[in-house]
Amino acid sequence: MSPAALAAFVGEAQRTGNASSLHSAGRAARRAVEESRETVARALGARPSEVIFTAGGTESDNLAIKGMFWGRRTQDTRRTRILVSAVEHHAVLDPAFWMAGHAGAEIVLLPVDGDGRVDVDTLRAELAEHADEVALISVMWANNEVGTLQPVREVVRAARPYGIPVHTDAVQAVGQVEVDFAASGVDAMTVTGHKVGGPVGVGALVARRDLALEAVLHGGGQERGVRSGTLDGAAIVAFAVALEETVAALPERAPRLAALRDRLVEQVRQAAPGAVLRGPDPASGDRLPGNAHFTFPGAEGDSLLYLLDSAGVQASTGSACQAGVPQPSHVLLAMGVPEAEARGALRFSLGATSTQADVDRLAAALPGVVARAQAAGLVSGRTMGGAA
Amino acid sequence: MSPAALAAFVGEAQRTGNASSLHSAGRAARRAVEESRETVARALGARPSEVIFTAGGTESDNLAIKGMFWGRRTQDTRRTRILVSAVEHHAVLDPAFWMAGHAGAEIVLLPVDGDGRVDVDTLRAELAEHADEVALISVMWANNEVGTLQPVREVVRAARPYGIPVHTDAVQAVGQVEVDFAASGVDAMTVTGHKVGGPVGVGALVARRDLALEAVLHGGGQERGVRSGTLDGAAIVAFAVALEETVAALPERAPRLAALRDRLVEQVRQAAPGAVLRGPDPASGDRLPGNAHFTFPGAEGDSLLYLLDSAGVQASTGSACQAGVPQPSHVLLAMGVPEAEARGALRFSLGATSTQADVDRLAAALPGVVARAQAAGLVSGRTMGGAA
Repeated sequence: MSPAALAAFVGEAQRTGNASSLHSAGRAARRAVEESRETVARALGARPSEVIFTAGGTESDNLAIKGMFWGRRTQDTRRTRILVSAVEHHAVLDPAFWMAGHAGAEIVLLPVDGDGRVDVDTLRAELAEHADEVALISVMWANNEVGTLQPVREVVRAARPYGIPVHTDAVQAVGQVEVDFAASGVDAMTVTGHKVGGPVGVGALVARRDLALEAVLHGGGQERGVRSGTLDGAAIVAFAVALEETVAALPERAPRLAALRDRLVEQVRQAAPGAVLRGPDPASGDRLPGNAHFTFPGAEGDSLLYLLDSAGVQASTGSACQAGVPQPSHVLLAMGVPEAEARGALRFSLGATSTQADVDRLAAALPGVVARAQAAGLVSGRTMGGAA
Repeated sequence: MSPAALAAFVGEAQRTGNASSLHSAGRAARRAVEESRETVARALGARPSEVIFTAGGTESDNLAIKGMFWGRRTQDTRRTRILVSAVEHHAVLDPAFWMAGHAGAEIVLLPVDGDGRVDVDTLRAELAEHADEVALISVMWANNEVGTLQPVREVVRAARPYGIPVHTDAVQAVGQVEVDFAASGVDAMTVTGHKVGGPVGVGALVARRDLALEAVLHGGGQERGVRSGTLDGAAIVAFAVALEETVAALPERAPRLAALRDRLVEQVRQAAPGAVLRGPDPASGDRLPGNAHFTFPGAEGDSLLYLLDSAGVQASTGSACQAGVPQPSHVLLAMGVPEAEARGALRFSLGATSTQADVDRLAAALPGVVARAQAAGLVSGRTMGGAA
């Protein structure tokens, strides 16, 4: 959490007053929330009335998928199809599949190419044949594992003639690339606080006012009736401060991270010649500047992760949310990576505080780590209990 | 937010590490969350594995109502009835009615007596006739408007022979009266951070492990698959600190608040002889110690609220979540209060920092405020736009 965001949180948390109360303390809290809404909107190219505050990315994705599905199907009962890319975060995929089991949704997984980029031709073909049955489309702005920037504007162009709304999960993108809600043409967009230096537990769904959107959390009717729950003023204010700060720093940060990432890629390739970079070529510009992702043949991602951790380098095997379960990433499998290779995956994320010294430490540790992990080999048929 | 809770928040927010990550920073964050889970469980008479962290009371209530409905109806499709008291918070009522519109639920509103206490005989009769069709029962621990302590143990005794799970919203009760999850016999219980001196935006659903409970937010599968979303470590740690502190202070605070509340009731009656105390007689012990609630004949609650606010006294006309809409409270109407009288409602809440000086300020301001509000009279047929 950025120092400025934390200071804003502390300042707001020391006030009393529920932002929905009518007395003066409540109205002061409300003002702070509304000013933060304006800041968030400005940073994302949206209107303040389009910002719906939530408890974070997962809730925003659930609101988008379920809320748009219920909203659109209520208008026309034929609309049962949810079109999502095969490489979406579980916070998009799991609500979609839950709706298939509980609300009559049909899921269409849009395939991706070898770099993890969604195939817009398949989308166009699906729309040409089934547009009347499509409730919504969801394609992320950038993939959280391999950093692929998705052709969101092309998705919007394909959907627009049919009036089908498009949602995008921009959690990974904001602060790494320019994200402009209005210019993108999407109807709804997920953002979250803790990816931009703000608190965990706060985020937003940015949604056009004319979007048919049912609530997922019902109650007091806050956030224009779409998201009930006492407004979390302190977290909202801190989120706005962090987001504004992060977006303002983007022109400086993005090229710096990209240069650091390029050196990381080069140093990893030198230190572990068998490593395969997954996702788009960094030189293409189609990749998040802070993302590098490799598979290391003959090694388990978990083994690599633990050995690197001992050497002071913190990496991830896939989405952190799926960590603990050593299954190959659905993202890599969708990209056509063979299962055995996918199991040796490791993602490196660079952020505002990452330095060349961090990269050097990784490069120094890597040859020994990879050798030890390869000696341990792939554990066949291993299963682990616990949460996914 | 209590100073200790805020300090705990700040300490945790300055660490990095997603509690679901496998690297050492992630594991340290996970330890802090699990220690907090133990603290929360201990304070509420529950087991750590029964604590599901959420973003607050509204989300916990939605998870309880929708999650238990889906879970129980999946086991047996005849189970479509949701039994709720007529005086539940909107965070319980609105999810229930939404399920009626979207998932085939039937809502049975359990009536209350003139003090707002749920009629357990009606519940027993309903169960005798329709037990096989009942998905769940939800009766709050204490009412948020008129402070009525509900006969939750009697509800549990009535439900147990049929194996029907009981949820209780204990948001208002925790920190005001003793709340023991195991001793109460309920299957699920909602608590929230900001009512106990913790942050807004964090809470828990305490739920028995054998309860059939579907998730409302899907994704990474955190919180044993029932509540996905990045764990909000800083808020969780602060919530645990505040809850422990509040529960420890209960033996001192409860009688002090009750004595202060009794003086408030006496002083209001002297200052405004027409005022009618709503809810149980404080001497009965069936009322939250920090709650006083009056109707003032011939006056609008909103007028009273604004005039008192100018005098430095902050009150509420009903549930804060419903503020902004001058409709008579559903709680008062369920208690049989005529609509015209219900419109002159004002709730006074006493908390850890309330003093006799606050009560004196109210008593001093009240005669003039009531006279002015009565002179303005009841605005007939008035409607206001905006969120409920």
